[in-house]
Amino acid sequence: MAGTLSVAVAGATGAVGREFLAVLEQRKFPVGSLRLLASERSAGSRLPFAGEEVPVETLGEGSFAGVDLALFSAGGTVSRRFSPLAAKAGAVVVDNSSAFRMEPGTPLVIPEVNPDALAGHHGIVANPNCSTILFLMAATPIHRANRIGRAVVATYQAVSGSGWKGMAELEEQNRAVQEGRPPEPRLYPYPIAGNVLPFVERILEGGHTPEELKLHNETAKILGDPRVKVTATCVRVPVPRAHSAAIHLELERKITADEARAILSAAPGVRLVDEPERNRFPTPRDAAGGDDVLVGRVREDLAFPTGLALFASMDQLRKGAALNAVQVAEELIRRSLI
Amino acid sequence: MAGTLSVAVAGATGAVGREFLAVLEQRKFPVGSLRLLASERSAGSRLPFAGEEVPVETLGEGSFAGVDLALFSAGGTVSRRFSPLAAKAGAVVVDNSSAFRMEPGTPLVIPEVNPDALAGHHGIVANPNCSTILFLMAATPIHRANRIGRAVVATYQAVSGSGWKGMAELEEQNRAVQEGRPPEPRLYPYPIAGNVLPFVERILEGGHTPEELKLHNETAKILGDPRVKVTATCVRVPVPRAHSAAIHLELERKITADEARAILSAAPGVRLVDEPERNRFPTPRDAAGGDDVLVGRVREDLAFPTGLALFASMDQLRKGAALNAVQVAEELIRRSLI
Repeated sequence: MAGTLSVAVAGATGAVGREFLAVLEQRKFPVGSLRLLASERSAGSRLPFAGEEVPVETLGEGSFAGVDLALFSAGGTVSRRFSPLAAKAGAVVVDNSSAFRMEPGTPLVIPEVNPDALAGHHGIVANPNCSTILFLMAATPIHRANRIGRAVVATYQAVSGSGWKGMAELEEQNRAVQEGRPPEPRLYPYPIAGNVLPFVERILEGGHTPEELKLHNETAKILGDPRVKVTATCVRVPVPRAHSAAIHLELERKITADEARAILSAAPGVRLVDEPERNRFPTPRDAAGGDDVLVGRVREDLAFPTGLALFASMDQLRKGAALNAVQVAEELIRRSLI
Repeated sequence: MAGTLSVAVAGATGAVGREFLAVLEQRKFPVGSLRLLASERSAGSRLPFAGEEVPVETLGEGSFAGVDLALFSAGGTVSRRFSPLAAKAGAVVVDNSSAFRMEPGTPLVIPEVNPDALAGHHGIVANPNCSTILFLMAATPIHRANRIGRAVVATYQAVSGSGWKGMAELEEQNRAVQEGRPPEPRLYPYPIAGNVLPFVERILEGGHTPEELKLHNETAKILGDPRVKVTATCVRVPVPRAHSAAIHLELERKITADEARAILSAAPGVRLVDEPERNRFPTPRDAAGGDDVLVGRVREDLAFPTGLALFASMDQLRKGAALNAVQVAEELIRRSLI
């Protein structure tokens, strides 16, 4: 490890945790030393990083002494308890949970969208929800040219959003169906194999899922514009690890599909995949394992005179979680904020 | 066969054709004699109906002599050629293809929505597209109480929409994935196993799929109200035989979720499945094999002050095709129009 920063990863053995390690290595992040933290259950195992086998330690109150950057993806409860301790010990935390996202003093950042929000950080930066990242990576370039009034989003969310357990559940149920056994739901209340589940997590007051409210609330915070209204239906589909979304935007002024394509072609982190004559469009299969948010099916809307419709796919574990967090850390370094 | 009507089924060996036979039998439709018609390739085989083995004949110009009711599901080209011949021979045709749907003189009918349109038929009645049926079964009861101005629909469409070939493609690819082989796309340009495809069929001018335009155009015709604007993104998902849709409606006036639930509970052909406390919502797995359109996730919208959001699932081969056509025939009998 040839870098200069002492990095800790909390939740290192989870699906996002493992992706943190892959992304840090692939991007040659300046890791000087690496501390892998997880629950007691996982402690003692080792994970490969940059040619070494790094031991996994139990996450505890003393875990962050001397740490410069702490990447958290261990759920809201763990983050609420340990992120402030890490910040107090002098680390900058990039937290993938929902614990601090809506706190007024905590920057909620997608580097391509609102990097300037990092300036005011008090030790914790929040990573937005994966569906918010997908939506805003596709919609913000348009919004900058032509303000979004309202957006209607329907998601097609992969089981990786539920971590290893979700991925194992889909795999086991697919095997059961192949072998003629009934697929047994454990994690989700219904079988996910050959099915779609029209809710993610649970239902809150008003009938919305947390995921749907996050799309609304996080968007307003990230864009710094509460006039942008987002309504969503969040749906789990039997796809392993990339999320997709059908996005319908109502804009301030009319935009042509060609104007929108030109804007999206120039947007960082976005790859325009939109070749109707060859049926080339974004799919979660093509997005999986990659860094880009794929955007296509760009067309003028049939119901809104100033409307625009899009379809987008993105690797949920990478840009939806680990990659975005590491890009936040890179931006913190670039701005000497770490 | 104890009925009084001479019935012909064109496209009898297809996925919808086989469902016609199941539905006719289950509903005790008054079939006096049954003629099964298909391409030369399928002729000579036999299909079971009401305890008999009925031979499949080659569809030809003379196939409709003496036929009272002809149910067509053999594609647009076959319908365009043979439906007018059947009508000329004295049969009433219920056609599941898109060939005549938008012809001004042809009724386009969902019996629960616009049965009165049958009165003007000239020998051919068109069955709407499956996505249109799904959308309007869920949305029309609301529309009757509180006019829809605009609707945004995102579909989650099963492979049965592509007939046996679609169903076989998903099954074969699921098997390949289980056995560690790469899934080979044949019918669809991408693998459908573990994937979603953000288009159905092909892309037309303006960037829309035929499916998306049908939702817009057929809705206006069926409701007899061109002010109702529908915009859609139609997406194929790895589900065997039931379609789903996320539906966001902008209504004339504000409606509460409870008011909407009361309306939907009383709607014929609709089953309200909406129990947030038990996570009971519509899924394609629950809709498959049944007659009802399942509707749930009823909630007030986050972006539209007069908005309402819903999620609906429906067996694509039954209410989306065969069942609706047989219900049209039943309505024709009830009104002495056959």
